[in-house]
Amino acid sequence: MKATAERILAGDRRSLARAITLVESERPDHRAQSLELLSLLRGAGRQALRVGLSGTPGSGKSTLIEQLGLMLADAENRVAVLAVDPSSNQSGGSILGDKTRMERLARHRNAFIRPSPSRLAPGGVSARTREVVALCEAAGFDTIIIETIGVGQSEILVSEMSDVFVLILGPAGGDELQGVKRGVIEISDIVLVNKADGDLEAAARQTCAEYAGALRLLSSRPCDPEGVPMAMTISAILGTGLSTAWNEITALAEWRKRSGFWDSNRTRQEVRWFEAEVDRCLLDEIRTIPGLAEVRTEVALGVSSGEIDPGEGAVRVIEWLRTRKSPG
Amino acid sequence: MKATAERILAGDRRSLARAITLVESERPDHRAQSLELLSLLRGAGRQALRVGLSGTPGSGKSTLIEQLGLMLADAENRVAVLAVDPSSNQSGGSILGDKTRMERLARHRNAFIRPSPSRLAPGGVSARTREVVALCEAAGFDTIIIETIGVGQSEILVSEMSDVFVLILGPAGGDELQGVKRGVIEISDIVLVNKADGDLEAAARQTCAEYAGALRLLSSRPCDPEGVPMAMTISAILGTGLSTAWNEITALAEWRKRSGFWDSNRTRQEVRWFEAEVDRCLLDEIRTIPGLAEVRTEVALGVSSGEIDPGEGAVRVIEWLRTRKSPG
Repeated sequence: MKATAERILAGDRRSLARAITLVESERPDHRAQSLELLSLLRGAGRQALRVGLSGTPGSGKSTLIEQLGLMLADAENRVAVLAVDPSSNQSGGSILGDKTRMERLARHRNAFIRPSPSRLAPGGVSARTREVVALCEAAGFDTIIIETIGVGQSEILVSEMSDVFVLILGPAGGDELQGVKRGVIEISDIVLVNKADGDLEAAARQTCAEYAGALRLLSSRPCDPEGVPMAMTISAILGTGLSTAWNEITALAEWRKRSGFWDSNRTRQEVRWFEAEVDRCLLDEIRTIPGLAEVRTEVALGVSSGEIDPGEGAVRVIEWLRTRKSPG
Repeated sequence: MKATAERILAGDRRSLARAITLVESERPDHRAQSLELLSLLRGAGRQALRVGLSGTPGSGKSTLIEQLGLMLADAENRVAVLAVDPSSNQSGGSILGDKTRMERLARHRNAFIRPSPSRLAPGGVSARTREVVALCEAAGFDTIIIETIGVGQSEILVSEMSDVFVLILGPAGGDELQGVKRGVIEISDIVLVNKADGDLEAAARQTCAEYAGALRLLSSRPCDPEGVPMAMTISAILGTGLSTAWNEITALAEWRKRSGFWDSNRTRQEVRWFEAEVDRCLLDEIRTIPGLAEVRTEVALGVSSGEIDPGEGAVRVIEWLRTRKSPG
């Protein structure tokens, strides 16, 4: 692992890709190697700017990431793009696949794009993504964009790995504002209303004004500078507003570094990472208790035949666990 | 609980609402009462048509549910609308709140709208929603619409409580097709492309044709009739296509009843419900092991100070668990 760590620190892409496959593996021996590798790399103390980025389908998120990524990569800012796909543990991947997306960015020498793993245990997506982020930081990337889709749980997970969280929206009518949940607005530092071009420009400005209002109402973060969270209009296709948006992202990151929020936030994130990992491991552990699998199967048969209610069945399993004579 | 069960079976709304609050409660004594009540109600053997319904923000989902709900309620079909909100366990609710949505439907004597609970433990949303569905079935509703937002995990959860799953989309450009994940397409029986009116009509028809193609490619369900899954255009605002869509939903439900899929699917769903409930209870159970909380706190301090990596910290907790002398 020491040689691998050195190659990753030297910026070797192939070693990085292999290390990502290693941390995404579920084999116990791979897990032990991953932990060793992560510990070795941690010593280097490298940090990237981690930008969490979410947008609903149709908001133009892929176009934005490609344009923003190209702008940064052209300016010698090394960019990694990682995807957290909340549905990937079911049957994996988007319809057209990630390879057809961001084709130009994928070919850029300063960019690295890693689609979400196609198959992982529930909950595993987020735990492993945190580790993939750590690998990319060690590999010397300046910016790591952690992308997610959907409105809900996955944003919360991504925000817990990010230094700055950006939400991308399309122009929408006033009554559609409610479609974006309070929880997602609350974790957003910068809301970008995309498609401020052509016929949709006026609608985009209107949507932006509405979100700016909502952000003012909901904001209650004493740790941020005046004006944060903020809403801005952009056009990913035309490229307008992108450099302004990036300046706001980096200015906020700098402010957070100076104020101490950056460090305290990262510490808090590490503790949450640990807590989530413990819960996952505890569940794995308890599943191996001798006899439990058999009791579950037996009760499941009763549920299947309609004799036992599902909730009642769960109570029976727990009662068995509590009263068994020889604990494992 | 027996009197409560009788009132619910008689269609008393107030008792139903109170019972929902009871099953959503996290108090252990409430849990025991809930299980008793659910068991009593189960005896009645009532079934509703459970329609899972998902759509991204801006797809016009609320308008569709209100229009469809009013159409059904006016025809003496009793409709319950339940919301599963994947972000609600963070900080709850949509910006404008559920009360301002579907105002006309909410006032209809044949309709019952229940927003998602504002605060629940992670994973709890889905477990409790299943039970709320069971309460509404016992209360004699003909149709239960289980609504969710987002593209990902929550759809999978909702599809596991539904007899028919419907996805609502807005018109979108061809390259945006990829925004909707394969996993969500695979669980969809009927894709409704909304906003097929005015300027967007042509775009809606184009999107519908693209999804129809994708559905043909991805479909591999021998248990369904010819032509399922299907894609159709509708206009929720104009009301066009709604009765056709409803006819397709009920025709599919009838087909599934005749083919035996309905029953086998419900049995499979009950077993999954049981399994999810067991996992949740097991984690609760293991958290109470004497000394574990203290070890977690101690290791978390090490993680917080940077001495221990998060993944390594989890390994230490599990090692403590394995080697402790007196298991609880």
